Amino acid sequence: MLSSIKPIFHDAENLSQNDIDVVLTSTNANDKYLANIISELSGISPRIAHSVESLCNSGTNGIVSAYSYIASGLADVALVVGVEKKDSPGLVLEWDQSRGQYSHPIYWSSMFASAHMRKYGTTLEDIAYVGAKNHRNAMDNPYAYFKKMFSIDDIMESKPLTETLRLLDCSMPCNGAAAVLLASDEIIKKFTDLPVWISGIGQKSISAGFTKNDELTSMTSTVQSSMVAYDMAGKKANDIDVAELHDAFSICEIIELEDLGFTHKGLGSSYVRNLYDTNDKKINPRGGLIGSGHPLGATGIAQTIEIFQQLQGKAKKRQVEGAKTGLVHNMSAASTSSTVLILES
Amino acid sequence: MLSSIKPIFHDAENLSQNDIDVVLTSTNANDKYLANIISELSGISPRIAHSVESLCNSGTNGIVSAYSYIASGLADVALVVGVEKKDSPGLVLEWDQSRGQYSHPIYWSSMFASAHMRKYGTTLEDIAYVGAKNHRNAMDNPYAYFKKMFSIDDIMESKPLTETLRLLDCSMPCNGAAAVLLASDEIIKKFTDLPVWISGIGQKSISAGFTKNDELTSMTSTVQSSMVAYDMAGKKANDIDVAELHDAFSICEIIELEDLGFTHKGLGSSYVRNLYDTNDKKINPRGGLIGSGHPLGATGIAQTIEIFQQLQGKAKKRQVEGAKTGLVHNMSAASTSSTVLILES
Repeated sequence: MLSSIKPIFHDAENLSQNDIDVVLTSTNANDKYLANIISELSGISPRIAHSVESLCNSGTNGIVSAYSYIASGLADVALVVGVEKKDSPGLVLEWDQSRGQYSHPIYWSSMFASAHMRKYGTTLEDIAYVGAKNHRNAMDNPYAYFKKMFSIDDIMESKPLTETLRLLDCSMPCNGAAAVLLASDEIIKKFTDLPVWISGIGQKSISAGFTKNDELTSMTSTVQSSMVAYDMAGKKANDIDVAELHDAFSICEIIELEDLGFTHKGLGSSYVRNLYDTNDKKINPRGGLIGSGHPLGATGIAQTIEIFQQLQGKAKKRQVEGAKTGLVHNMSAASTSSTVLILES
Repeated sequence: MLSSIKPIFHDAENLSQNDIDVVLTSTNANDKYLANIISELSGISPRIAHSVESLCNSGTNGIVSAYSYIASGLADVALVVGVEKKDSPGLVLEWDQSRGQYSHPIYWSSMFASAHMRKYGTTLEDIAYVGAKNHRNAMDNPYAYFKKMFSIDDIMESKPLTETLRLLDCSMPCNGAAAVLLASDEIIKKFTDLPVWISGIGQKSISAGFTKNDELTSMTSTVQSSMVAYDMAGKKANDIDVAELHDAFSICEIIELEDLGFTHKGLGSSYVRNLYDTNDKKINPRGGLIGSGHPLGATGIAQTIEIFQQLQGKAKKRQVEGAKTGLVHNMSAASTSSTVLILES
């Protein structure tokens, strides 16, 4: 995890440990006092230090909390560190018995897939395009867990885990850490000539159990979060140049593209096919969770770093040319809660 | 834990579940997604929901985080719920090997006790006065874990656990929950005619391990937190009418009274003896952690509720007459981190 913090001090030449007022850790680990441990190991004595947990969107919860410490005037500089191991206790939704013995996340995603296929005629081949695209994008991500191209056929023929999802439709739990620095408008210019601004924040928790989503072809918390975020930023989906979408399973990206307004309801799979055919990196340029791996508490931070680098023009081979406005979508537990961030350079 | 939330809806007649933008859970439990689970069980669909963990001062970390969401403009109303079981995994500082096999918190407190006795001549009888006072105060606290008077002799003769601390010098881990509602300046008047304001906030993390405190007769993080909090509120220790101090062990209260400026260094035990002899409830009127029990993640919230009720004039038999300005001190792990809040009516 310390290797995720070091590049921040490298990039921000004038940054010293003494500048950091807040250290938040984002994790599903059972380890206690992690924010203080990471602070001590990093030579930081922050005023505010604690862990944030909300399953898979812990990372963006940490970022929004850091934003609020700064916007409230309680702090000027905040470090948010996501850290997770591949056997994280956040992987199984033990408390959610709404699907009986089918408690692994693949079962809720399979139900989303079945419902979307039934209502909109989405096919297993459509779903395979998400993985093919995201694994291809991940080839240019030096931090990707996978680095292998998979054809549509490879994915179609990978091990079926449920009726609607195959092994290569799934993101993989993995070890991972990611860290991001937030600073106030006045201070940030001390550290970089290329600041990126958080201009929109939307969050929503509709429930903890799976049963409260209105229907399984749409993610209510994602729709509601995005409306608030777009409104706060004064932006629409059309204004977004590049986006990280929470593709825990391939079907999620298809539904999220519709729910975030990138395309109309039912047209998510055509949208993905077009991205694939034209090699357009607009959606999940780093390879998403499917290509990059899914270290739960680190994921939302890694997503935000990708958009940050895109808006700085520093995404190298992954760069979406001229990207000025980006979106991060990060969600938990069958999309019972979601975060949407709008970032601008 | 739901029984800690219900009184809030009872007291704030105009409050509905729809008013609540933020639900934070403060806990050391390993259970995931607790803020969402508690929200669903309470009929709340918040925008922001996550758990906060920083060992024993998780509660005040949650309160300050809620404050920042409101002060930043991201939210108007926030509910902070602390919840813990008596066998909490936060009880043993597994990661701190700085005291070898002596990893239970009683060992760091014993080292503080020995150092204070050596430097200032504090006696085992002095230390017993803290427990006698706080157990007596707890008799008027309907939520106290203990409800029994103990004489100085009872405490002196209770089972010795180390050379300097006996069983009745220790707070007890217990089940517990506590919830507090924060709202913006504009909104709070909808819910109560007796608002209490957070006017000062100080927090500091000096380390995670025990070895960084400058000396063992003072708690560095507490001194630094209090300076920031007093400064923000424009108050001094002399202005404080009533205070909750984190008496995880009796010696802590003596040292904290000195570090928070209630008395001079070395005079903490005389200060406590005077409170006891005059039946003055100014310090730990609900009985502190020693009298009330110490449900880790709920403790900082229970402390804050006590000061809140004192400043509203609703503390019944515990009431410190005319209390207008109060202080909450909540700390973690050998005082490696502390929070100090100043509240005013």
